[in-house]
Amino acid sequence: MTESPSRVEAFSDGVFAIAITLLILEIRIPHGEHGLWEELLALWPSYIAFLMSFVVILIMWVNHHELLRMAKGVNYPFLFANGFLLLTVTFVPFPTAVLAQNLATAEARTAVAFYCATFVANALCWNLLFATMVRGGLLHQDVTEEAVSKVRRAYYFGVLVYVAATALAFIRPVLGLLLNVSLWGVWITLGYRAEASASSSRS
Amino acid sequence: MTESPSRVEAFSDGVFAIAITLLILEIRIPHGEHGLWEELLALWPSYIAFLMSFVVILIMWVNHHELLRMAKGVNYPFLFANGFLLLTVTFVPFPTAVLAQNLATAEARTAVAFYCATFVANALCWNLLFATMVRGGLLHQDVTEEAVSKVRRAYYFGVLVYVAATALAFIRPVLGLLLNVSLWGVWITLGYRAEASASSSRS
Amino acid sequence: MTESPSRVEAFSDGVFAIAITLLILEIRIPHGEHGLWEELLALWPSYIAFLMSFVVILIMWVNHHELLRMAKGVNYPFLFANGFLLLTVTFVPFPTAVLAQNLATAEARTAVAFYCATFVANALCWNLLFATMVRGGLLHQDVTEEAVSKVRRAYYFGVLVYVAATALAFIRPVLGLLLNVSLWGVWITLGYRAEASASSSRS
Amino acid sequence: MTESPSRVEAFSDGVFAIAITLLILEIRIPHGEHGLWEELLALWPSYIAFLMSFVVILIMWVNHHELLRMAKGVNYPFLFANGFLLLTVTFVPFPTAVLAQNLATAEARTAVAFYCATFVANALCWNLLFATMVRGGLLHQDVTEEAVSKVRRAYYFGVLVYVAATALAFIRPVLGLLLNVSLWGVWITLGYRAEASASSSRS
Repeated sequence: MTESPSRVEAFSDGVFAIAITLLILEIRIPHGEHGLWEELLALWPSYIAFLMSFVVILIMWVNHHELLRMAKGVNYPFLFANGFLLLTVTFVPFPTAVLAQNLATAEARTAVAFYCATFVANALCWNLLFATMVRGGLLHQDVTEEAVSKVRRAYYFGVLVYVAATALAFIRPVLGLLLNVSLWGVWITLGYRAEASASSSRS
Repeated sequence: MTESPSRVEAFSDGVFAIAITLLILEIRIPHGEHGLWEELLALWPSYIAFLMSFVVILIMWVNHHELLRMAKGVNYPFLFANGFLLLTVTFVPFPTAVLAQNLATAEARTAVAFYCATFVANALCWNLLFATMVRGGLLHQDVTEEAVSKVRRAYYFGVLVYVAATALAFIRPVLGLLLNVSLWGVWITLGYRAEASASSSRS
Repeated sequence: MTESPSRVEAFSDGVFAIAITLLILEIRIPHGEHGLWEELLALWPSYIAFLMSFVVILIMWVNHHELLRMAKGVNYPFLFANGFLLLTVTFVPFPTAVLAQNLATAEARTAVAFYCATFVANALCWNLLFATMVRGGLLHQDVTEEAVSKVRRAYYFGVLVYVAATALAFIRPVLGLLLNVSLWGVWITLGYRAEASASSSRS
Repeated sequence: MTESPSRVEAFSDGVFAIAITLLILEIRIPHGEHGLWEELLALWPSYIAFLMSFVVILIMWVNHHELLRMAKGVNYPFLFANGFLLLTVTFVPFPTAVLAQNLATAEARTAVAFYCATFVANALCWNLLFATMVRGGLLHQDVTEEAVSKVRRAYYFGVLVYVAATALAFIRPVLGLLLNVSLWGVWITLGYRAEASASSSRS
C-alpha cells in the first residue's frame, strides 16, 4: 500500500461527475414540426432513461464515497480494479440512450435486457474492487469482520438481482426495469447504515 | 452529521462546470451554404439561449458556494437533496437547446414555458436542499434565525416567480423570458448580501 | 474580500479542462466511402482549428494560473468577472468548429473573422478581470506598481492585436490567422516573466 | 522551479477524466429497425475501440501519477510539455471513432495505422515531458540515476513499438492492434515497479 486514496478519489469523482452530466446529451432535441408539445411528451422514454441512470450513478457515487472511507490507502491492483469499475460507469450513457430510443418500440425487451446486463457487469466490478481492498489489506483497522461480510453479501446480492432483472426483461421488460429500480432502496440503505456506523464509531 | 462538505463541494463543482461547458454543444455548426454571415446571424436564438443558461448556472454555482459555507457538515439526506438539485442543473442543456431551436418559430410559447418550468423544478430543489440543511442541524452556530428566514423567503419567492414566468410564457413568450432574467438580479443581490454578512461576521 | 481563490481556481480549472477536451468533438468522423486516407487528409482545416484552439486555451489556463497567484483573495465582482471570462472560454469550441468547417471554402474570410472576434471578446474579459482585481484591492502586497502596469499594457495590447487580426481576416484570412497565432509568443513570454519574477521574489 | 505540481496534477486529472468519459460518445445509438440485437452485435468494432482506448488512457493516468510523484516541482517548460502530452490525450477520441467506424471495412488498414500513429505522437510527448523534468532539475533527490535511465529506456522503447505497430498495421491490421495492446503489459509493469520502489524507499 503506497498512498492515501485522495487522488484516486478526485479522478473517480471527475469521471462520475462527467458521466452523470453527459446523460443529457442522449435526449434528442425536438424541432417542433409536429407540434413541440406533442414532441416533448413523446420523449417520455428519454426522461425515464435519464432519470434512472442519473439516480443510479448518484447512488454509485455516494457508495464509492463510503467505500473509500473504509480504505486507509490504495495499491496498484486497486487502481486497476477501480478503473474497471469506472469503465462500466462511463459506459452507462450508451445503454441509457439505447433504452431511450427503444423503450416505446417492439424492441423494448432487448433494450431493457441490455440496460440491466450493463449493471450485472457493474455489480461484478464492485465485487472485484472490494475483494482487492480486502486481499490487499487496504481496510482501516476499525472496519470489523462483520462490516466486511455485510458489504460482501450486499454486493453478491446485487449481482444476483441484476441477473434476475436481465432475465425478467426478456419476458416482461417493465418488470425488469422495476426490479432494477428496486435495488436503489438496497443501495441507499446500505450506504445509510455504513454512514451511521462510521459516524457512531467516530463519536 | 458525518463529515465536512468538501467532497460534495468538489463533486457539485464538477457537475456545474461540465453542465455550463456542455451548453456550447447546443449551437449547430453552420456550413456556409447560404452565406456564412447570414447563417451566423440566424443563430441569434442559440446565442440568447446559451447566454441565459450560462449566466443562470454561473449564479447557481456562486449561490451553491455561499449556501455550503453556511454548513458545518453534510449528512445522508443532504447528499440526495443535493443530488436532485444537480439533476435539474444537468438537465438545463436540454431545455436550452429546445429554446434555441424553437424561439424564432411559432412554437416559441411552448419552448419558453418548458424552459421556465425547468427552473420551477430547480427552485423547488433549492427549497428542499435548504430544508434538509435546517432540519438536519447542518448549519453553523453563527447562522442567525434571521439569515435562515431570509434565505427561505428568497427561495419561496423564486418558485413563485418561475411559476409566473411559466404562465406568462403561454401568453407572451418574450415577457416570460424577461421575468426569468429579472430573477438574476434577485439571486445576485441575495448572494452578495450573504457574502457581505459572512465577511463582516468574520472580520 | 472574503476568501482564498482556491474554489474559484478549481471551478475555473474544471471549465478550462472541459472546454479544451470538448474541442475534439468538432472533428467529424470520416466513414471511408471515398477512401479513408483521402478523407483524413481532407480534414486538415479541422486539425488546424483544433491545434490553434487547444494551444490558446492551454496558454489561457497557464496565464489564469499566474494571474490568480497575484491575488490574495476574491470578492463578489471578481466571481462574475471571472465568470464572463469563462463564458468566452466555453464559447471557443463553437468558432473553432465554424473555422474547421469553412476554412477551406469561399467563406474562409467570415470564419476567420468570427474566430478572431471571439478573442477580442475574450481579451476584453481579461482586462475586466484584472481591473476588478486592482480596484477591489485583491492583489498581494508584493505585487509592484510596475508589474501591474506591465500586465495591463499586455492586456490592452492583446485587444488591439485581436481587433487587427479580425480586420485583417476580411482582406487576407491566412494573415489574420497568423497574426492571431503570433500572440501566442506574447502570452507565453508574459507568463514566463511573471513566473520568473514570482520565483525570484520568493527565493 | 516555482511550485508544487498539485495544480498541474488537478488540471491533468480533469483532462484525463473527461477524455476517458467522452469515449462513449463515439458509439452510435442503434434504433432497432433491423433488429436491435443484431445492431448491438454489429457494433463490435465500437466496443473494441472503446475498450482499447479506455484501458490505454487509464494506464496513462496511472503512469502520469507515478511520474509526477518523481517531481519536487514544476517549471514553465514543464507546463507546456505536459500540455502537449494532454493534447495527444484529448485527441484519442477521434482516432478511436475512426477505428470504430472502419475496423470492419476494407479501410481497416488505414484506420489501425492512424490509431497507432496517434500513440507514436503520444509516446514522443512522454519522452519530451520526461526530458523536461530531467533537464529542469525537477526530480526529487531520492530518484536514482538508474531509475531515470530505466524510465527513459521504457519511453524510447514505447516510441519504437508504436512505430512498428503503425508499420505492421499496413500489412496486417489485426497484428498492428495486438502489438499496440501488448504494450499495456509493459506500461503496467513499469508503473508497478516504480510504485514498488517508491513504497520501499519510503518505508
